[in-house]
Amino acid sequence: MKKIFFAFLVLGSLQSLANTDSLFIRKIYDEALVQGKCYENLRTLCKNIGARITGSAEAKMAIKWGHDLLQSYGFDNVYLQEIKVPHWERGNPEAGWIMNEAGELSKLNILALGGSVSTEGLLEGEIILVQTVEDLEKIGLENIKGKIVFFNEPFDQAQINTFKAYGACVDQRWIGASKAVFFEAKAVIIRSMAQSTDEHAHTGSMHYEEGVTKIPAAAISTVDADKIVEWLKNGKVFLKMEMDCRFFPDEISYNVIAEMTGHEDDDIITFGGHLDSWDAGEGAHDDGAGIVHSIEAIRILNKLNYFNNHTLRCVLFMNEENGNFGGKYYAEIASENKEKHICAIESDRGGFLPIGFDIQGTPEQVEMVQQFRNLLFDFELYKFEPGYSGVDIRPLLQHYPEMVQLGMVINSQEYFDYHHAETDVFESVNRRELELGSAAMAAMIYLMDKTL
Amino acid sequence: MKKIFFAFLVLGSLQSLANTDSLFIRKIYDEALVQGKCYENLRTLCKNIGARITGSAEAKMAIKWGHDLLQSYGFDNVYLQEIKVPHWERGNPEAGWIMNEAGELSKLNILALGGSVSTEGLLEGEIILVQTVEDLEKIGLENIKGKIVFFNEPFDQAQINTFKAYGACVDQRWIGASKAVFFEAKAVIIRSMAQSTDEHAHTGSMHYEEGVTKIPAAAISTVDADKIVEWLKNGKVFLKMEMDCRFFPDEISYNVIAEMTGHEDDDIITFGGHLDSWDAGEGAHDDGAGIVHSIEAIRILNKLNYFNNHTLRCVLFMNEENGNFGGKYYAEIASENKEKHICAIESDRGGFLPIGFDIQGTPEQVEMVQQFRNLLFDFELYKFEPGYSGVDIRPLLQHYPEMVQLGMVINSQEYFDYHHAETDVFESVNRRELELGSAAMAAMIYLMDKTL
Repeated sequence: MKKIFFAFLVLGSLQSLANTDSLFIRKIYDEALVQGKCYENLRTLCKNIGARITGSAEAKMAIKWGHDLLQSYGFDNVYLQEIKVPHWERGNPEAGWIMNEAGELSKLNILALGGSVSTEGLLEGEIILVQTVEDLEKIGLENIKGKIVFFNEPFDQAQINTFKAYGACVDQRWIGASKAVFFEAKAVIIRSMAQSTDEHAHTGSMHYEEGVTKIPAAAISTVDADKIVEWLKNGKVFLKMEMDCRFFPDEISYNVIAEMTGHEDDDIITFGGHLDSWDAGEGAHDDGAGIVHSIEAIRILNKLNYFNNHTLRCVLFMNEENGNFGGKYYAEIASENKEKHICAIESDRGGFLPIGFDIQGTPEQVEMVQQFRNLLFDFELYKFEPGYSGVDIRPLLQHYPEMVQLGMVINSQEYFDYHHAETDVFESVNRRELELGSAAMAAMIYLMDKTL
Repeated sequence: MKKIFFAFLVLGSLQSLANTDSLFIRKIYDEALVQGKCYENLRTLCKNIGARITGSAEAKMAIKWGHDLLQSYGFDNVYLQEIKVPHWERGNPEAGWIMNEAGELSKLNILALGGSVSTEGLLEGEIILVQTVEDLEKIGLENIKGKIVFFNEPFDQAQINTFKAYGACVDQRWIGASKAVFFEAKAVIIRSMAQSTDEHAHTGSMHYEEGVTKIPAAAISTVDADKIVEWLKNGKVFLKMEMDCRFFPDEISYNVIAEMTGHEDDDIITFGGHLDSWDAGEGAHDDGAGIVHSIEAIRILNKLNYFNNHTLRCVLFMNEENGNFGGKYYAEIASENKEKHICAIESDRGGFLPIGFDIQGTPEQVEMVQQFRNLLFDFELYKFEPGYSGVDIRPLLQHYPEMVQLGMVINSQEYFDYHHAETDVFESVNRRELELGSAAMAAMIYLMDKTL
């Protein structure tokens, strides 16, 4: 009898805890959807600052904007964390043309890949089509030498999750130039890492492997890529292009941080996105959305007077796109300062409909997060599977292998129509979907803070 | 021992059945995403035909388009089902202005509600704000008499599912005029049934209750609605408007039908959307998407040589928007012909990301559909809850109360930015999300055909 009574008590108190959680999460959503600030914050970031590649004047303005905005919400602690970052600039807009043997000429939509060297004036050469990086070997030195390699691996449309399609062919962008140089290519152009066939070039980072000759590398639009393939059926195709890009010495920059100090201990839950973007478009989905998600999440928890157990730390990371030095320094400084990191959450998959969280952790940690399923189902969050967290927070795992990390999962279908392209502007973000992302992040921070 | 052996056999065959299903569904998705036709079909419907309100020349062209397209795919049976429909026309574009006592004047974005009478020339009057239909009583005859009632009930932004927000205030559009006339209003204007604050008027159907005086009714944009509220704070606001709309005699129209005859019996699984649209925009999401989802679903099943047990019937319903006579006749003719209807599936919630199916049926039928959850989870379909099926297929239930009905559930966040407005154009639809909708419908038809 006693036992049964006790069981009732426990069940009752678990039930009432679940009710408390449920009510609080509903309040989070009400605040985000009815009184939300994230959409107007994103408008300001996109329209008053714009694209903000690491080292640019816009990146500096974005740091000031983030700092001032977080300060205006009245947190315990708002500060800049000094880091060292690379500084690459596109310079003059690129120009490119293709020509065939019949004398036809067509202008290309072209963007240098981030980190590429310039062409040092006009570069000319014959194009050799190499479908994938793996095909270099097959086509061979004798056919590639002195030519411009054209990597043309498209997205696999059959993939349901478009990040998987991206991951399967992004090597052409990242290491294409380093591999092609062994076959004495003079430059590389790649098919844009885009989901659709359209006229926009999509940039993104590339790198040169240690010691290789640095040859220019650029992305062309998928429409232009298809055109080259067509032209090649009728004979040789030649390219002329000019790119003005260059590196400057590393410089000082900052992660922007705001905290709500923990009431129970000094364990830290980090959440954030990245403040830098590529220099095409306005960095609205990548990752203006993650920035305003994170700022809004901490604003909401503060506004609702949430009495947090652990320290909640909102981080606007700098330099995710070309080096990830914001994330790396953040982890190193944390370790040096002997901070206690128990959890990190990242939003870096756009401002579309949030559908869940990928969980990077042990099976027990995965199970812990999956217990929130029922609480979050009514808010259309249902995907809680083992997976990848995020580029910015990932370096923490080196120092804190026992922490749990979460990556917000967001409807991925449209993401690669905008990613790293001039199309990634404020107007491509829907207000409600953005607000739901903020609420999802705030709800998850709340649940992790209560549970860990 | 035997029992155990038998159990293994059964488990084994269940397992292999599940594998067969899983492989076939993967093929459906491959066809939709890699060789899909629905996006280009939607482009043709939107750009070559355009908005297609019942009775219009465009509606007639849409019938021909649907019939010819289905015939080109080589089905057993493609035919037109004759029905009788109402015929209402907007006539000349509406014009409307507000004026205040200070002599300020502002042009309105205004659309007559579908089914409204005209203003018979320029109509003028003082505006009286009545927030909701329920408030008429509170404000009373003495304040309303001779004035133009302005219903201004906004969407509840806190609702996660925007269809619920819509449902909660759509009465102002549907019966606002009929209720206001009892308080001797001379006309009504309503706040557009829109999720966001923007400059577009959203039309939609209204009706006059039997015997009431018919007064003109129009929707104004949410921006204009907010402006009137602001102006009313400083004194009286007057409206001038002109609407040219009128009814013509009922006329003959058609549902368009294509069938794959059942190999096992003559039970029928119906699936479809509606071919008519409102006359603003291009009816891309509402319901061009449902039309091309349905056409693509039957094309895919046919292309994959699916050996269907029951008759699969794709129906492009006419006249959902203002009368639903396509759906009503379809059900009546089915009953008269003693057809055997076991299931119906509708897509009429836009071309955004599909997330599941609402199930209208008994608890056993709900459970039957929910068993598909695991099979469909990898395709990001997870919501299988009791709910509403669709306007077009609903009348079948009167005659076939034991059938199961499904309504495809689609991410609702953006829907009411486009619904019944000039913004509902082809460009607002994402190719991949549309294709996923087609695949989801085909997969569900397949599963129901195998299971029922």
